[in-house]
Amino acid sequence: MSEVETVSEQRRFGVIGTGVWGETHLMAYASHPGVELACICDLDEELLAQRAEQYGVECTTTDYREILANEEIDAVSVVTPDFLHREIAVAAAEAGKHVLLEKPMATTVEDCETMIAAAEASGVTLMVDFHNRWNPAMWGIKQQIVAGDLGAPQMLTVRLNDTIYVPTGMLSWGGRSTVIWFLGSHSVDLVRWLFDDEITRVYSVARSHVLKARGVDTPDFFLTTVELAGGGVAQIENCWIMSTAMPTVFDFKLEMIGSEGTCFADCSSHRMLQSFTPAGASYADVAVRTEVQGEPGGFGVNSIRHFADCVIEGREPAVSPRDGLENTRVLVAIHESAESGQPVELPR
Amino acid sequence: MSEVETVSEQRRFGVIGTGVWGETHLMAYASHPGVELACICDLDEELLAQRAEQYGVECTTTDYREILANEEIDAVSVVTPDFLHREIAVAAAEAGKHVLLEKPMATTVEDCETMIAAAEASGVTLMVDFHNRWNPAMWGIKQQIVAGDLGAPQMLTVRLNDTIYVPTGMLSWGGRSTVIWFLGSHSVDLVRWLFDDEITRVYSVARSHVLKARGVDTPDFFLTTVELAGGGVAQIENCWIMSTAMPTVFDFKLEMIGSEGTCFADCSSHRMLQSFTPAGASYADVAVRTEVQGEPGGFGVNSIRHFADCVIEGREPAVSPRDGLENTRVLVAIHESAESGQPVELPR
Amino acid sequence: MSEVETVSEQRRFGVIGTGVWGETHLMAYASHPGVELACICDLDEELLAQRAEQYGVECTTTDYREILANEEIDAVSVVTPDFLHREIAVAAAEAGKHVLLEKPMATTVEDCETMIAAAEASGVTLMVDFHNRWNPAMWGIKQQIVAGDLGAPQMLTVRLNDTIYVPTGMLSWGGRSTVIWFLGSHSVDLVRWLFDDEITRVYSVARSHVLKARGVDTPDFFLTTVELAGGGVAQIENCWIMSTAMPTVFDFKLEMIGSEGTCFADCSSHRMLQSFTPAGASYADVAVRTEVQGEPGGFGVNSIRHFADCVIEGREPAVSPRDGLENTRVLVAIHESAESGQPVELPR
Amino acid sequence: MSEVETVSEQRRFGVIGTGVWGETHLMAYASHPGVELACICDLDEELLAQRAEQYGVECTTTDYREILANEEIDAVSVVTPDFLHREIAVAAAEAGKHVLLEKPMATTVEDCETMIAAAEASGVTLMVDFHNRWNPAMWGIKQQIVAGDLGAPQMLTVRLNDTIYVPTGMLSWGGRSTVIWFLGSHSVDLVRWLFDDEITRVYSVARSHVLKARGVDTPDFFLTTVELAGGGVAQIENCWIMSTAMPTVFDFKLEMIGSEGTCFADCSSHRMLQSFTPAGASYADVAVRTEVQGEPGGFGVNSIRHFADCVIEGREPAVSPRDGLENTRVLVAIHESAESGQPVELPR
Repeated sequence: MSEVETVSEQRRFGVIGTGVWGETHLMAYASHPGVELACICDLDEELLAQRAEQYGVECTTTDYREILANEEIDAVSVVTPDFLHREIAVAAAEAGKHVLLEKPMATTVEDCETMIAAAEASGVTLMVDFHNRWNPAMWGIKQQIVAGDLGAPQMLTVRLNDTIYVPTGMLSWGGRSTVIWFLGSHSVDLVRWLFDDEITRVYSVARSHVLKARGVDTPDFFLTTVELAGGGVAQIENCWIMSTAMPTVFDFKLEMIGSEGTCFADCSSHRMLQSFTPAGASYADVAVRTEVQGEPGGFGVNSIRHFADCVIEGREPAVSPRDGLENTRVLVAIHESAESGQPVELPR
Repeated sequence: MSEVETVSEQRRFGVIGTGVWGETHLMAYASHPGVELACICDLDEELLAQRAEQYGVECTTTDYREILANEEIDAVSVVTPDFLHREIAVAAAEAGKHVLLEKPMATTVEDCETMIAAAEASGVTLMVDFHNRWNPAMWGIKQQIVAGDLGAPQMLTVRLNDTIYVPTGMLSWGGRSTVIWFLGSHSVDLVRWLFDDEITRVYSVARSHVLKARGVDTPDFFLTTVELAGGGVAQIENCWIMSTAMPTVFDFKLEMIGSEGTCFADCSSHRMLQSFTPAGASYADVAVRTEVQGEPGGFGVNSIRHFADCVIEGREPAVSPRDGLENTRVLVAIHESAESGQPVELPR
Repeated sequence: MSEVETVSEQRRFGVIGTGVWGETHLMAYASHPGVELACICDLDEELLAQRAEQYGVECTTTDYREILANEEIDAVSVVTPDFLHREIAVAAAEAGKHVLLEKPMATTVEDCETMIAAAEASGVTLMVDFHNRWNPAMWGIKQQIVAGDLGAPQMLTVRLNDTIYVPTGMLSWGGRSTVIWFLGSHSVDLVRWLFDDEITRVYSVARSHVLKARGVDTPDFFLTTVELAGGGVAQIENCWIMSTAMPTVFDFKLEMIGSEGTCFADCSSHRMLQSFTPAGASYADVAVRTEVQGEPGGFGVNSIRHFADCVIEGREPAVSPRDGLENTRVLVAIHESAESGQPVELPR
Repeated sequence: MSEVETVSEQRRFGVIGTGVWGETHLMAYASHPGVELACICDLDEELLAQRAEQYGVECTTTDYREILANEEIDAVSVVTPDFLHREIAVAAAEAGKHVLLEKPMATTVEDCETMIAAAEASGVTLMVDFHNRWNPAMWGIKQQIVAGDLGAPQMLTVRLNDTIYVPTGMLSWGGRSTVIWFLGSHSVDLVRWLFDDEITRVYSVARSHVLKARGVDTPDFFLTTVELAGGGVAQIENCWIMSTAMPTVFDFKLEMIGSEGTCFADCSSHRMLQSFTPAGASYADVAVRTEVQGEPGGFGVNSIRHFADCVIEGREPAVSPRDGLENTRVLVAIHESAESGQPVELPR
């Protein structure tokens, strides 16, 4: 054993919102050697108690302000519905907490700007959890672009769809959001990040039939085309009504065509593992949020760990507040275009 | 920030053999917060210098005994060719170092028994790096078996093949080993682990044409059938002569058929990421050994991290010395059967 | 053997244009028991002689009018470049020949209308060769829609791309056409046919960099969104610059999402047959134009056989002249939208 | 229209056995322009009436001898269970009918020899319907071998499995046959045909648990290794207990590794068409037996059409009686090896 002993201090993190994805934050923090999962918040007391027991958290609350008032807490994850980020994030920043926001940053540009101003004023770290930048397939494409293997990026297509279970069963608030906020946010972030460029023009067509008939008043899908400042073009497909007979809850495919090379990613029906049992056909998650030999893993966990590492080491996260703001700006324009039926310009 | 400060001590690890796979051990240890990568050994001084610089290691040596003589070192990885494990591992155990052996444990049962005896005598931890137990796809199948989703396992097929580049280009010692030691070791471990049972009968057919004609005197392939004590049967395919035009260096597929369910894994041509560039068709590694946002990952890294965690926490690793021994026992029988053309019994 | 003897008469067919796809017409007619491949025409005399020998055709000419002047010929295939259909087709109809036109019907709506008028005036059969309606995967989707298995069709995406070899190597006239005429024509036909509806609005973005730099002045790709009268929406991707390292010359994927079901077709990288040889990675054609046990087959051949059957039996082909006209109307609008940057209405 | 009129005579064909696969023969003959589907036989009168109506056949019988007694009939297909071929085929040959036998030829070598002798004595054509030789993927591999693209074939693996529905639901006589007769016959034919060589040694392991427990007393699977005279080796997997949650009723994969190239076929989960509907996940047949635009097609139909063409034109079929005999000889040896647990030699 080393004679040298190092002194390290665990940082204390809180999680506000412990639903399906909130649990990923619990997994990431609870398994991080430098982090103490100090306090968790949810409006659902039963769920809260269950999570607290499973992840060994002593402090629980239904009022996020209690977490913010706790001076021992260094940082918080905000994993509430899309449209409920601003108030919490601003209060957190004002309380001096570093903030990790689930995607999208917010549903208005003003919300984004307000949160960024609050973080800057307090000097806290603010990151939006665009975790596909940690997806090994997406990272692989990014590296190939950076290395020049594909030549200059010309066009990109991204499909990110969910089965109808997501807006009608998994999310209680599907009708108060859209598939653009939920999945388009990832898609747009990938476009900006892979092209390393800004989107300047948007066109989108949406329809509202199937979900509406099911009592969830939100569009079924958006089919979007975006143009980038440097000349690149991308087609984005976001749909919330795929059949629940699909073996995965989502369908995620990406294609990048450069002047010299072409590449394809399939992050859903890749067939790493296919299972057929009396319960039906299913493809288990092997990449997003996994638990192998007792250890949590997957890129959904790794982006959260990255935030923790940045807080601990005082580093800038790989996703900037501006990434969140520009993302929301595009998402707002997509909704506008789908509404008006016309292209929307995003001048720079 | 937490008022509570914890004192942790970094353990010091050495790596003996820093070639292709030795580098994975360097990546795993160098990035582990509880580990100091203290000293590395290789006979190739140029490579050694390069690795030392890249991983920030100050101590290097071409004589592994120097590492074993270093009292500050707690544990070593032995990443030498298959047939060169025994002497080093026994010496390491006698020097009180915990030992992580790359697979296979050794090429004779006697070597395995000797190493196990040495480790038991010294009370050190001994693990064989069957990293597919950390492969999310394999873990997923294991969990489905344990959960009963597949019913009772009946039959299994495992293909684990390499392109001819591996024995002729990647490995300098291909002609002194066989594809059974190199890939059959993984295959047999998966059979034993997934069935949770011992192999009692082995039949194998091998041929030696293509590699021999290339001057590497080792069989081209072994096609093996194994029977397990509880009645299960598995077919194993290990080939070393696939075309180098393949987009991956290996082909890895597994199928498990249970009384109630069927599942399939494809760990090579899964299409998570396919690239087509002037350099040809390639499928980048997204699962075995990756580096995403500056952090090493993948199941090849995670099994090594697990060893480090076990050393740090004084836990038993998920792979036991007996797993290594029984694995080698079966591999020896496969060679015997291929030689004699007859089934070989492995009585228990 | 049957005592009943039937008298059948072989119809005589000519083929105008015997290049890459013209050969498919030769294969289809030469192997059809009810057809005599009577005369073939091409401007390239060397190619013509070669085809004549291979397919056992005695009559060859470099002037298509000779074929039309031949009173014994019942029907002709026109397999000339997109923009050279009208003159030949009108002359053929006026000469009383049934006409099979390769897709697209023509590159202007007026050309289509003129050809249709000529065919109607002469009472000859006129078919456009949208052979994907014979593609078993597309037919399967169509049958599922008709059977109601998918519910009401909501959205569709079609990708039909080629490697850059097609416009720069395979076609001598790539620079005088576009990927929309060449591949968009298939894509748009699939949209109209699968929705059984007309397209009323079109938006497209194109870019012109890579091919232009290679001296072929035609857009690299069009990313198109179309809306149908009944509310359906489709996204269409047509690109001509994919890497030549791809194992197939084209990439063809289709996804249909209905109110009740979702289906996916992959007609290019489906992996029915993958080969890796010293010549590289290639996926052989097993569906479009095949020759198995000496017999030609595949859906590219079957649509042509269908035309022959319709001529022989006096039936209406499964593709109508109006299908050709409406297809061209949409393709023209796609070019217009790409030019103007605005949506184009196609009122009905 | 041609002045030349040709006189062709339709040959009259009968089909004995009109179950699931018998219908394929009906489809092939009914759609062949040179064939009259003259009479059909089945023991199930209800099914018989239904088939007669659907395929427009006037003559039906429950006694196959009536078909053989009909002097106007030229040829018959025998599509009865495996073990019921001999009596019918011998009687048919003696009645001067050409005979197409479904695979396997028979379940004993003696049966094969007797049928061959009868056909030779009568001078009739005898073909066994190994239709995978018409499978475009298999044909593609064969052509690559013949062309030398793969170098000398070294090893082959074939998986041909069914879901448990086949022996328990589809076949009424599953318990009186085995998966080796049903699927192994195809597998072994592919091995002989692709290597163009004879099998000289066989080893197989079978188990009997799951089907037995379901009341169908036949093995669940056979895992077989075969060696060929010229040094090639193949592994064959035939299983009858896959989960019925699979999207296809069978799983069919083949891999051929030659000295210079490697190729892979996937004829089941190839993803040409995947559908997800309230009825579950299913991959429609696009290759074996299809009906597109009203025309039957697929390689299952094409091999039967080939037999009709050979009868009409007096040609030798691409599958010889000896192919049937040698196939059965190997299948018998596989059963023997599975029984004895020892390799079985097949000396030449």
